[in-house]
Amino acid sequence: MPELSSYRPTERTVPTRSRERASYDRELVHSVLDEGYVCHLGFIRDGAPVVLPTLYARRDERLYIHGSTGSRPLRAAGAPDPGLAVCLTVTHVDGLVLARSAFHHSINYRSVVVHGTAYQVTDPEEQRTALDTIVDHVVPGRSADSRPADAKELAATAVVRLDLDEVSVKIRTGDPNDEPADLSLPHWAGVVPLARGYGAPVPSGDLDPAVALPGYLR
Amino acid sequence: MPELSSYRPTERTVPTRSRERASYDRELVHSVLDEGYVCHLGFIRDGAPVVLPTLYARRDERLYIHGSTGSRPLRAAGAPDPGLAVCLTVTHVDGLVLARSAFHHSINYRSVVVHGTAYQVTDPEEQRTALDTIVDHVVPGRSADSRPADAKELAATAVVRLDLDEVSVKIRTGDPNDEPADLSLPHWAGVVPLARGYGAPVPSGDLDPAVALPGYLR
Repeated sequence: MPELSSYRPTERTVPTRSRERASYDRELVHSVLDEGYVCHLGFIRDGAPVVLPTLYARRDERLYIHGSTGSRPLRAAGAPDPGLAVCLTVTHVDGLVLARSAFHHSINYRSVVVHGTAYQVTDPEEQRTALDTIVDHVVPGRSADSRPADAKELAATAVVRLDLDEVSVKIRTGDPNDEPADLSLPHWAGVVPLARGYGAPVPSGDLDPAVALPGYLR
Repeated sequence: MPELSSYRPTERTVPTRSRERASYDRELVHSVLDEGYVCHLGFIRDGAPVVLPTLYARRDERLYIHGSTGSRPLRAAGAPDPGLAVCLTVTHVDGLVLARSAFHHSINYRSVVVHGTAYQVTDPEEQRTALDTIVDHVVPGRSADSRPADAKELAATAVVRLDLDEVSVKIRTGDPNDEPADLSLPHWAGVVPLARGYGAPVPSGDLDPAVALPGYLR
């Protein structure tokens, strides 16, 4: 069966407002997910919502979330089926939108929201591949240049999977949307872009000076 | 009663692991909150968790969250008491931590988690002050240099408040924690710092060229 180019909208992925900002396009969702590596994972614990920042990576139509076997959400997801109901959100802030009116101030952003059920990965091969995927997602090429996890470390690491099925992306771009009557006001209007990047790598205090900076960090 | 210098730890703000990374210090919590302006707000809708990115600002021991009166969480918080149970999380990613072993790879970060009940602000004066606080939190000085919200706009804007009471901050800093046996491995180890900043402001396409860039954006 050919893969559909869009995720199917559901009652909870269609926003109540600014619907024109929502999309279900698969490639667009993937591109937003692949640009980040820290998500905010929401779940319910003792009847209350909990939101924790967590590392993730995508592999095809599956997200992998990394944690300790001792952490609360991963323990819950590892409990006997039916897994853990989660909402996983990834947000990139791209710019500050300054309008003439206080009311129309906004943020340019891209945000993916995934609803679903997270399950602990129990297959050792899938677990190992998922951990490599997460390391390489944060620093491409790194998993081949580090000591692989041993059996004890694998046992201490929980990997949770979440399939991409009920997914949407919401995007705001461009200029402020001022009221026509406000256009002649003397206030500056426009967008202040946010810049992201990396500083120079800082070697660990115990690093042998003979170990050169690898090419993938230059 | 003098304000305590720390928030009181509770069962849900004491982490199950890496407890040494958790703090309840009020000034530290404030500094992490004040450095950001986009939080991830978690709540429960139809029995499932939802996590949405949202603008916020702090005023003393209260957070204000901004939204439309039509948005789902704000409608819920505006419903008759007892408000909306939320978890509000703010995360700054400071660096990528590369260890010799795949297992000890990590992220340097600072993350505040606030548990509590959000209520819609109904006092018009508090609502107006809260909106100014949010605008000035994102761009200091901006609320005085924009057209204030009129009655119709205020009616269309929901502001939700969340008191800082059950709060913790979790921080990881510094070098990777490699195993002693791994220190002689030939892999580079250290931290890649993340850089954040702003690009040059981009005037709106409909901005009168006579309007100069304000000093607070230079």
